[in-house]
Amino acid sequence: MSVIGFIGLGQMGAPMASNLLRQGHQLRVFDINQDAVQALAAQGAQAAMTPAHAAEGAEFVITMLPNGDLVRAVLFGEHGICESLAKDALVIDMSTIHPLQTDRLISDMAERGFSMMDVPVGRTSDHAVAGTLLLLAGGTAQQVERARPVLMAMGNELINAGGPGMGIRVKLINNYMSIALNALSAEAAVLCEALGLSFDIALQVMSGTPAGKGHFTTSWPNKVLKGDLSPAFMIDLAHKDLGIALDVANQLHVPMPLGAASREVYNQARAAGRGRQDWTAILEQVRASAGLSH
Amino acid sequence: MSVIGFIGLGQMGAPMASNLLRQGHQLRVFDINQDAVQALAAQGAQAAMTPAHAAEGAEFVITMLPNGDLVRAVLFGEHGICESLAKDALVIDMSTIHPLQTDRLISDMAERGFSMMDVPVGRTSDHAVAGTLLLLAGGTAQQVERARPVLMAMGNELINAGGPGMGIRVKLINNYMSIALNALSAEAAVLCEALGLSFDIALQVMSGTPAGKGHFTTSWPNKVLKGDLSPAFMIDLAHKDLGIALDVANQLHVPMPLGAASREVYNQARAAGRGRQDWTAILEQVRASAGLSH
Amino acid sequence: MSVIGFIGLGQMGAPMASNLLRQGHQLRVFDINQDAVQALAAQGAQAAMTPAHAAEGAEFVITMLPNGDLVRAVLFGEHGICESLAKDALVIDMSTIHPLQTDRLISDMAERGFSMMDVPVGRTSDHAVAGTLLLLAGGTAQQVERARPVLMAMGNELINAGGPGMGIRVKLINNYMSIALNALSAEAAVLCEALGLSFDIALQVMSGTPAGKGHFTTSWPNKVLKGDLSPAFMIDLAHKDLGIALDVANQLHVPMPLGAASREVYNQARAAGRGRQDWTAILEQVRASAGLSH
Amino acid sequence: MSVIGFIGLGQMGAPMASNLLRQGHQLRVFDINQDAVQALAAQGAQAAMTPAHAAEGAEFVITMLPNGDLVRAVLFGEHGICESLAKDALVIDMSTIHPLQTDRLISDMAERGFSMMDVPVGRTSDHAVAGTLLLLAGGTAQQVERARPVLMAMGNELINAGGPGMGIRVKLINNYMSIALNALSAEAAVLCEALGLSFDIALQVMSGTPAGKGHFTTSWPNKVLKGDLSPAFMIDLAHKDLGIALDVANQLHVPMPLGAASREVYNQARAAGRGRQDWTAILEQVRASAGLSH
Repeated sequence: MSVIGFIGLGQMGAPMASNLLRQGHQLRVFDINQDAVQALAAQGAQAAMTPAHAAEGAEFVITMLPNGDLVRAVLFGEHGICESLAKDALVIDMSTIHPLQTDRLISDMAERGFSMMDVPVGRTSDHAVAGTLLLLAGGTAQQVERARPVLMAMGNELINAGGPGMGIRVKLINNYMSIALNALSAEAAVLCEALGLSFDIALQVMSGTPAGKGHFTTSWPNKVLKGDLSPAFMIDLAHKDLGIALDVANQLHVPMPLGAASREVYNQARAAGRGRQDWTAILEQVRASAGLSH
Repeated sequence: MSVIGFIGLGQMGAPMASNLLRQGHQLRVFDINQDAVQALAAQGAQAAMTPAHAAEGAEFVITMLPNGDLVRAVLFGEHGICESLAKDALVIDMSTIHPLQTDRLISDMAERGFSMMDVPVGRTSDHAVAGTLLLLAGGTAQQVERARPVLMAMGNELINAGGPGMGIRVKLINNYMSIALNALSAEAAVLCEALGLSFDIALQVMSGTPAGKGHFTTSWPNKVLKGDLSPAFMIDLAHKDLGIALDVANQLHVPMPLGAASREVYNQARAAGRGRQDWTAILEQVRASAGLSH
Repeated sequence: MSVIGFIGLGQMGAPMASNLLRQGHQLRVFDINQDAVQALAAQGAQAAMTPAHAAEGAEFVITMLPNGDLVRAVLFGEHGICESLAKDALVIDMSTIHPLQTDRLISDMAERGFSMMDVPVGRTSDHAVAGTLLLLAGGTAQQVERARPVLMAMGNELINAGGPGMGIRVKLINNYMSIALNALSAEAAVLCEALGLSFDIALQVMSGTPAGKGHFTTSWPNKVLKGDLSPAFMIDLAHKDLGIALDVANQLHVPMPLGAASREVYNQARAAGRGRQDWTAILEQVRASAGLSH
Repeated sequence: MSVIGFIGLGQMGAPMASNLLRQGHQLRVFDINQDAVQALAAQGAQAAMTPAHAAEGAEFVITMLPNGDLVRAVLFGEHGICESLAKDALVIDMSTIHPLQTDRLISDMAERGFSMMDVPVGRTSDHAVAGTLLLLAGGTAQQVERARPVLMAMGNELINAGGPGMGIRVKLINNYMSIALNALSAEAAVLCEALGLSFDIALQVMSGTPAGKGHFTTSWPNKVLKGDLSPAFMIDLAHKDLGIALDVANQLHVPMPLGAASREVYNQARAAGRGRQDWTAILEQVRASAGLSH
């Protein structure tokens, strides 16, 4: 069992700390909210006066804070973690923050001789309570193995994201995709309603196609991800179908800003000469727009 | 077995007609491409000179054409189907066309005393060859049952879409969702690449979340679809995370037009006072934008 | 003075026809709305029963209709203009329709040996009444000169748009720019209000900059239009300022979909290596996206 | 003549400082770039070692820096301005930064008993050299009058933006509008090229309409700004014309992301029941989307 400093006892942090206690770890907890600190103290944690105090004598220091500026302040500010942190301790930032800020924090810590990794979590506060969070571990192989027993007290699945900063990166990609997809799904569902079509029937159909299953594991693997752009479904036809959908939506007064933006991406793909390529070639089109292809 | 007129012997129509022949139906086929007609004739179909000729004495007339203007011409034009169609025959349009055009065609046919239904298909030309298409049947219950034996010669799954015009509607929704999702997926994958993150690891994470599984069967059923907007994940936080993703993408030169459009939808949801509602409330927001809520 | 057939007596067409009468032209008018026809008849026009009737013996036939399908029907349909049109007459379509449809109409007319030009109008119905419309004349030099005296009865400014189909094209460009600009202007004005800034002061500032005067005659002529992309104001900085504006707007809950879309265009310009070019290089960026540069 | 501390001698700051010297002011200048400091020293300025040093004994301290974090560091950091600033001095921030950051800086200064105003500039570095900048003065009436003689050494037009923080706000609005308009203008110009239309003729037409002159002083003042939404040009028609333009652009492979986004704004206006209102009602639509109307 380890001595752990824990900073940030919010909706996620508090149950995560509880689970660490329950597993027998020794905790020193800090939060600006004294009620949250007292609640953990009642469970056996030691209340810390400052982040520095929480970090004293700790093997691990966990931060779970709302944004990167706070993480920076808690690390480097007055009475911050660095004032008392042992050189052989490991700081684990579990907050969801800006990935390029994570990089700078890790490198600023390294400059001072400290070791830090990023392990943001997936799932919800219910899972935090149940100790069944998804742990997205960024760090060296050694850091991940060292932290694993501590982390597994809070979650039931740990994904090694492939290196320092990669935990927060994979969290970002996942959130981006799911949050934007939510808005796109709403456009489709509202168009469905405006067309007088049963949503259940639409779901039944989409459950068997990329519309419901996504492209990553259906249309992409045997085409664009293998470099095969021969058309199973041509960009020209996809562009035509998008045009019909937008025309219908505009006649029925259903605003579809994501759909409208997507048509312009297909439009651009056609301008780039990809009209007769497979629709999965959109990936190559976006790569080219980002300056990533050769 | 039935006498069937079949108009439109393209990449999809030709194998569909072949499968009808193979099941023992008697076919009269028409296409402007004489080679396509001859190929079917060699398989036992009767070559028709005109759509009207193909429709003579037929119980069913199937159309599989590139767009709605052609369907209209083939029905109502000179030497069109209506010139010879029996009043008790059933026209089955299997083309993918504009749904509001489908409605007008069905109603124009009804005015002349003719019966017509829409049964666009899902899947690819490989499935057309194998006779394993997905059949999206729009029509009255009676029409669907009458057409079923004929349709099942071409596919292996028939979904009753719920009424006249609903087949083409569900096709449209499915295509809209999958085509736009393809572009959104490309943004996420390219951001992943620009961040130096392994796509396989991103896939591994997303395969367990709405990012990979979609929202229709994960985040929506127990929240917005039940009218529960209490936050499992707040719109304010989703908006914040989108902002981080767009900021990173703009620093790394990854254009994300769909992501940028989606942030403005969340922005609008917050302006409407939904910031502390669950992220699935985006569905209600888009419904309100479309004038569909009360 | 000329004998003129005039088809389409709506909000614009009726006063235009009145002005032709007032100038001494002899008119045969047709509309499906009999009241509109009678109103013109009361001013001295001859009421026609059909478009063909209106075109009989006319030197000019003017069409002013809501969309291109109607123009086509009035030309080529039953009792249409072509049934009675003299080979040396000139058809002038003044409707605002789809330019590619205009091209087909002109070419279909030419195939039948008829001469047709496009002269959509600018300004409002008030100007139609006053005879001060802007006339955007598409046609050969000869057609424009022949039609000029007739046209100038309806407007006070004629722009020779440079050839057949160019009248409707310049109308389209002007309308596109002004209609989209209206939405962009609203975003700026609403952000102004949300910031608590006086709109009058914002106007005062913008009246002296491209924000108020546009780019066509200010920032572009000496830079991108001359091929000079050395930076007066760098794309990187413009991109940064857009990012600030969007961040402020998102904090204040002002949805800015056009602004968000525009940032992704600058983003793409930076990905294409244009970050240190002048902001007017966005024109070259959009040309490249459209496949127009070499 | 005044004693002035000047921090930030970049492409804009250096010539601004030169002009102050030329008018007889006494300058203490600081920049991290020693070459820039030496260049000003050669013109008669006193070189300061730190921001604090530059502010010693100054009546005015001017900051002209690349971003708000630097302004904050220069004010409140170690050896920052506040260490030596006289309580009756006036700090003038002429940088272009985030307006909400400006607000915090002004209020943080006020808390310490210091007086600060925002005066970002318009126009280019050529105008900085010529002393003909546009000065956008945010501050109390008293601050503006006090700073005016100093400011007019650097520019030839001063606009009183209406209060503290309003200078930076009006700069933001102006930049937003001009930068996004640049991208929209490019879409129109490229569509023009793709249509084979002379850009000069398009310019000639647009120079007389809101497309070229903007809406602020043409279509808005007598309609939406007066509360008159009776249609001179209906939203339904504007929406239709946008649809034609986008359809043409998509046929010709001209990507128009801003145009596509704008159609969805009109679409939303129609969903909100504004289809038969004047097109300037888009302003009210966007206000409503931002939660600003009642």
